[in-house]
Amino acid sequence: MAHVHLNNNMPGIVGLMMQWPHTARALNGVAEVLLQTNEGLSAAERELIAAHVSRLNICTFCSNTHLNASLSHFGKPARFIDVTRDSVTDGLEIRPVMQALLNIAGKVKESGRNVTTEDIETARNLGATDNMIHDTVLIAAAFCMFNRYVDGLGTFAPQQVDRYAEAGKRLAEEGYLNSVPIPM
Amino acid sequence: MAHVHLNNNMPGIVGLMMQWPHTARALNGVAEVLLQTNEGLSAAERELIAAHVSRLNICTFCSNTHLNASLSHFGKPARFIDVTRDSVTDGLEIRPVMQALLNIAGKVKESGRNVTTEDIETARNLGATDNMIHDTVLIAAAFCMFNRYVDGLGTFAPQQVDRYAEAGKRLAEEGYLNSVPIPM
Repeated sequence: MAHVHLNNNMPGIVGLMMQWPHTARALNGVAEVLLQTNEGLSAAERELIAAHVSRLNICTFCSNTHLNASLSHFGKPARFIDVTRDSVTDGLEIRPVMQALLNIAGKVKESGRNVTTEDIETARNLGATDNMIHDTVLIAAAFCMFNRYVDGLGTFAPQQVDRYAEAGKRLAEEGYLNSVPIPM
Repeated sequence: MAHVHLNNNMPGIVGLMMQWPHTARALNGVAEVLLQTNEGLSAAERELIAAHVSRLNICTFCSNTHLNASLSHFGKPARFIDVTRDSVTDGLEIRPVMQALLNIAGKVKESGRNVTTEDIETARNLGATDNMIHDTVLIAAAFCMFNRYVDGLGTFAPQQVDRYAEAGKRLAEEGYLNSVPIPM
């Protein structure tokens, strides 16, 4: 049961956004600007960074939602992962630079202060630009927010792949700005 | 030196926002909606939660900026803190419910999953409403993002109180939406 009374029975961040539309609009603005572009990093890669950090934060709802958004962008079948065990990159062929950026994202998950000059150099040597490094750090940081919002208020996470398959496909195709039915 | 090349010499998140105005607008939207209201929690209390979490994340720039925004709201003199040592609440008389909410914010800093039913009950017994609990968790979560953005890209933080006194006062009085001079 959630730590706050919800006026709906939607899971994860969806239930929170329906109840608090004022903050939802601001949060969806962050997701949209970070995830719905192919500049430097593709939308598929951006969603994969989000899913990776969410898995490291043991957030079932966010990890499965954004993994399935990523898989939809990649044109791969939907998948449910156990966040305590499974890697988000299983079965995906990702660019070498993405391995270096996922490493940076993992450091950011622990603390921004854990990112080293060597981590950055490794990514640069594989082709990472300033914009790619910037967006990786900010996506990782943003999911440290979203994951804490979802789990800090004790929301529930479905355990069935179909819930995430639909949501991930819709987010990939339609984006975040109108992702939750809230009064404007 | 920052991990990315900056087109300006501004510290902390300001330099990042000037360089990346597209994401800056979304991030300032989050800060505005969470910090610039007195509903349930006063703006002074909201900024104090932000400063507290930033201190726990050892983020000198954010902790001092938001502590001084809080002090400005409270009508107290500006102050520079050593984030490895000093409490943000020193010299402030805060409501008992705020102690319970700062405890929840500290749990969220570690992980959303660390917030317990007992933490929530303690806050409720001291007068916390659902909205206050929601906003506390989301402010704490948001500063886990802002802190990681600032430190994950290796920005610098001034060590002089006057820099934070001015910025804090301006943020308290004028808010976040136009806090950084960026092209619209």
